[in-house]
Amino acid sequence: MTGTLASGPALAQDATQAVAEAVAATGVSPESAFIFNTLLFLMTGFLVMFMAAGFAMLEAGMVRKKSVATQCLKNVALFAIAGILYYLIGYSLMYDGVDGGWMGTLAIWSPDDSAAAAGDFAAGYAASSDWFFQMVFVATAASIVSGTVAERIRLWPFLAFVVILTGILYPITGSWQWGGGWLSELGFSDFAGSTLVHSVGGWAALAGALLLGARRGRYGRDGSVTPMPASSLPLATLGTFILWLGWFGFNGGSQLAMGSGADAVKVATIFINTNMAAAGGVIAAMIVCQLVYKKIDLTLVLNGAIGGLVSITAEPLAPSLGASMLIGGIGGVLVVVAVPLLDKLKIDDVVGAIPAHLVCGIWGTLIVPFSNADTSYGTQLTGILAIGLFTFIASFIVWGTLKATIGIRVHEEDEERGVDQAELGMEAYPEFGPSAV
Amino acid sequence: MTGTLASGPALAQDATQAVAEAVAATGVSPESAFIFNTLLFLMTGFLVMFMAAGFAMLEAGMVRKKSVATQCLKNVALFAIAGILYYLIGYSLMYDGVDGGWMGTLAIWSPDDSAAAAGDFAAGYAASSDWFFQMVFVATAASIVSGTVAERIRLWPFLAFVVILTGILYPITGSWQWGGGWLSELGFSDFAGSTLVHSVGGWAALAGALLLGARRGRYGRDGSVTPMPASSLPLATLGTFILWLGWFGFNGGSQLAMGSGADAVKVATIFINTNMAAAGGVIAAMIVCQLVYKKIDLTLVLNGAIGGLVSITAEPLAPSLGASMLIGGIGGVLVVVAVPLLDKLKIDDVVGAIPAHLVCGIWGTLIVPFSNADTSYGTQLTGILAIGLFTFIASFIVWGTLKATIGIRVHEEDEERGVDQAELGMEAYPEFGPSAV
Amino acid sequence: MTGTLASGPALAQDATQAVAEAVAATGVSPESAFIFNTLLFLMTGFLVMFMAAGFAMLEAGMVRKKSVATQCLKNVALFAIAGILYYLIGYSLMYDGVDGGWMGTLAIWSPDDSAAAAGDFAAGYAASSDWFFQMVFVATAASIVSGTVAERIRLWPFLAFVVILTGILYPITGSWQWGGGWLSELGFSDFAGSTLVHSVGGWAALAGALLLGARRGRYGRDGSVTPMPASSLPLATLGTFILWLGWFGFNGGSQLAMGSGADAVKVATIFINTNMAAAGGVIAAMIVCQLVYKKIDLTLVLNGAIGGLVSITAEPLAPSLGASMLIGGIGGVLVVVAVPLLDKLKIDDVVGAIPAHLVCGIWGTLIVPFSNADTSYGTQLTGILAIGLFTFIASFIVWGTLKATIGIRVHEEDEERGVDQAELGMEAYPEFGPSAV
Repeated sequence: MTGTLASGPALAQDATQAVAEAVAATGVSPESAFIFNTLLFLMTGFLVMFMAAGFAMLEAGMVRKKSVATQCLKNVALFAIAGILYYLIGYSLMYDGVDGGWMGTLAIWSPDDSAAAAGDFAAGYAASSDWFFQMVFVATAASIVSGTVAERIRLWPFLAFVVILTGILYPITGSWQWGGGWLSELGFSDFAGSTLVHSVGGWAALAGALLLGARRGRYGRDGSVTPMPASSLPLATLGTFILWLGWFGFNGGSQLAMGSGADAVKVATIFINTNMAAAGGVIAAMIVCQLVYKKIDLTLVLNGAIGGLVSITAEPLAPSLGASMLIGGIGGVLVVVAVPLLDKLKIDDVVGAIPAHLVCGIWGTLIVPFSNADTSYGTQLTGILAIGLFTFIASFIVWGTLKATIGIRVHEEDEERGVDQAELGMEAYPEFGPSAV
Repeated sequence: MTGTLASGPALAQDATQAVAEAVAATGVSPESAFIFNTLLFLMTGFLVMFMAAGFAMLEAGMVRKKSVATQCLKNVALFAIAGILYYLIGYSLMYDGVDGGWMGTLAIWSPDDSAAAAGDFAAGYAASSDWFFQMVFVATAASIVSGTVAERIRLWPFLAFVVILTGILYPITGSWQWGGGWLSELGFSDFAGSTLVHSVGGWAALAGALLLGARRGRYGRDGSVTPMPASSLPLATLGTFILWLGWFGFNGGSQLAMGSGADAVKVATIFINTNMAAAGGVIAAMIVCQLVYKKIDLTLVLNGAIGGLVSITAEPLAPSLGASMLIGGIGGVLVVVAVPLLDKLKIDDVVGAIPAHLVCGIWGTLIVPFSNADTSYGTQLTGILAIGLFTFIASFIVWGTLKATIGIRVHEEDEERGVDQAELGMEAYPEFGPSAV
Repeated sequence: MTGTLASGPALAQDATQAVAEAVAATGVSPESAFIFNTLLFLMTGFLVMFMAAGFAMLEAGMVRKKSVATQCLKNVALFAIAGILYYLIGYSLMYDGVDGGWMGTLAIWSPDDSAAAAGDFAAGYAASSDWFFQMVFVATAASIVSGTVAERIRLWPFLAFVVILTGILYPITGSWQWGGGWLSELGFSDFAGSTLVHSVGGWAALAGALLLGARRGRYGRDGSVTPMPASSLPLATLGTFILWLGWFGFNGGSQLAMGSGADAVKVATIFINTNMAAAGGVIAAMIVCQLVYKKIDLTLVLNGAIGGLVSITAEPLAPSLGASMLIGGIGGVLVVVAVPLLDKLKIDDVVGAIPAHLVCGIWGTLIVPFSNADTSYGTQLTGILAIGLFTFIASFIVWGTLKATIGIRVHEEDEERGVDQAELGMEAYPEFGPSAV
């Protein structure tokens, strides 16, 4: 018995050593992982939130002086609307009980973190943090539309469209994939939303641009294109840098977890691939510009960066750094090629959102199987077409209905003096002389 | 004995399993919690720090061209002063030995992280990280003042006021509540500073505006108000977006902890409530604008966002998302109502800081008991009045003393040609033609 | 035997308690530390990445209207180039097998996180996160050059220089210290790169400015200096605030670890010291300006902030808050003194990068032994001279070669109408009237 008693402390010592090893092996406790994951959503979420400022500055810089204030207002308002609609309808429609189907449920969302409050961290993250992250994504889709239809759309009809887009359209196609719907069961892959966010925004913008028509005087009958230069290139540059910054959150946060060393490695990999794709987009756009035009157009280079970023968004984890640069670089080339093409088609996309977000969104989604063996070109194409068709047709119907009822375009004379004067009764730069165009 | 020996490994195995369970139950080690908490302060602190840029851009955009450079300088200088004064006087006055009383001690602050260095993490966070977070808060209060008194105040007297505000006034009222003083013992509640930061800035600004008088030509004898439009609406929009971003830090960091799953849930809840209040403020301001003026004033919408944010700041945790939207929405309405009211009273608040920060600060603090059952309307009112009276009277005395001694207002002709020329001898936009007003 | 069996649960209970204590003692598991460290690199890395936007805005604001678009383009392009070159050559040259020597190896970098993937977290952080952090640093060095040579350099030769600087020059001197080369073995100390990043950028800029010559009309034969005022002071201010924000990442991330409580304390200490140095730089620059010129020059104050930040970068951990303020303050004074001195020498540094980054970089590196007893003034001087000589001479040769071959300066008439028109064929502000100068 003495021996047994004596062996007590010795065993405890053994146990203590075992503890240390067990702790090291266990790695991250469920509660610590819960905090890490929640933190990832919040941190990358605020980066994506700041993209709203990026779009606002990009667009304010790209439109003419007489439309700047309206563009600012639209970007503030759409961010507010996106948050509210996603709360009232969107999130549940996208994530609640989709189960292989075509949409979720109609319900106001409310966070349920009762399990975590009771010490059960199996959910992995705070529900509110996930909602925050998803909400800033839907706002991004709306921001994309805003730039294309600038300078001639009326404010309230635009906002009405944003209500439908963020409350219904985006959540429905989102449910097909991220909500666990039919596309995800099919094996479609879109890591951070080249298609689900960027192309959706692009398709909605395209439908709007078609129904709205070009800005007055933009296209001559002889096929000529009247340049309507960006009013402030530093603001457009600032906006692009903010988007670039935000994209680390956009793609990095889409790993959805940072509660293990393996996830942390993946988030880091996504960061550098994302950056490399943007760099590739910039350099490719510059080179093509120089070769084709003998001069470099800053706005094309900025859109080259964005095009590179959109291109890597469908699969920012699997490619090597070199492949990421290539994928982004081709995105940059596509932008430089698509911009004049749209002008040929007399589709007036004021900020170049369709080339950067729609064209590169398609490209990025299509090329996923190149680096990710679990995917197939056929399935990727199916997803692109399904989401594209749905979004384009539904957007066309919504824009069309708005056009047929309340009207979507400002009057001719109002467009002439500028939407800022007409719609807001104010000027963006009242002390800087009259608008030149 | 053999049996006993044999039972050793078996027991160790049991113990190892117990270890794994214990680790899971323990959740977050004190050291991990210490890192999480410190990280929260640093991350949300840098977001709040960036609000200094937000105020600078908001104000640079809202003043006339001839005052932009001075406004920029004031915002850089006040941030520097706030940091230095809070180090020399403020922090100790606010937090050191208040103990139910009316102020702390007069002492230069220095960080004491010796316990953590010795492996004792009971403090919960690095002292330096807490100081960083509190320091960027005091700078916010000073930023609020800067906008109201723009375009006619002299630079050095303004900075002298900032010295007093950030070194003495803000820390004293801060000690009453966050320092553990009499108001906190009374049960007053102001989570992130609707009153302690925003109203304090607003009261100080109001006192300054009253003693300073309106800008030349702003108010006619017949009660007319001469519009003095904002020189750059995109900069004002950028500033607002930066503030919106920073507010996630402002409110989220005020949870003061992220070292447990429960705290992480709360920080996430605060993020989404904060966003919803801002969204409510935007939409409410837009609707009221449209109804009352038939046009939407972008600057009112921007202030609506800020008003919504200030309104939720006193209690960003307890309300539901819907209630947050409502609280922020009423804040947005208050802004639209208060701006013309101030003009009626001939109080010239150049950027609308008093409506957004003071009025909404009062509103947000008053409405806390609506969602937080541990508070009472009476106590909230007591806190609002006590802090308001102290700050207004003390600010009035400081501004008054400055006025009576070195003078606070630029000469008539200097105001005419602009404070940039008069005070700095430079122009903000030298190549963009003369100022229109 | 029954007794032994009975003692099992009792021992297990003991063990469980031991577990709890062991967990508390263990503190942070290797995997948790790995996540914390990786997170630190990513979070502080995105802050440093955003400094690219800060430089872009600072420079776009500081140049004349006719050069703004080119300045924006250069900053976007150099960030892309820095990332690509650091991937292709730079990182391996700086970090791979330096081993006390003068450079690493020539190899394309690729991340190796296989150990972490296999559950071994001894590396401490994700390789990709470290690369991200180092990559944004090299971009910073390139950004510094961009401002000095503005308004008269040709685009492609500038970008060619950036290729060499970020791919070869910066990595070589970087390898001497951070790569574990001869300087680090000597005991040189440069915590976050006063010399390795900022002075390197400054030396490269100085060599460029000397070979390029001043802007046309800048310096008269009679020693007069024609002012060429900054086109947009709010943009310059915004840029400075973004840099200030980014510097928390720059210095804080250079702790390279946040996986222990001790490291978290250090990161927090670095944050507040960094802020205090910037504040000291601002206030000192203001006071000297007021005393010497009787007026405050906003651009000098902005550079004072940057000078303060550069000054503390070599040792942001060891000094007290008061010492940090002093070190930064002297940096601010040096800026105000050095700017006119450069003009005397007819060295045309458009944005004041040489005073802020080179002069203060030297100052900050020299003063390290004042607060850090492990260093010596002699060794610091050795490092400053070695890196300075190498970078200046190598840069001079590269710039010289470019000048002798493809040429580095735009034609006279092109400079007259502006590099934007000449190089890009576009205007930054096409609707805001002609350039005044």
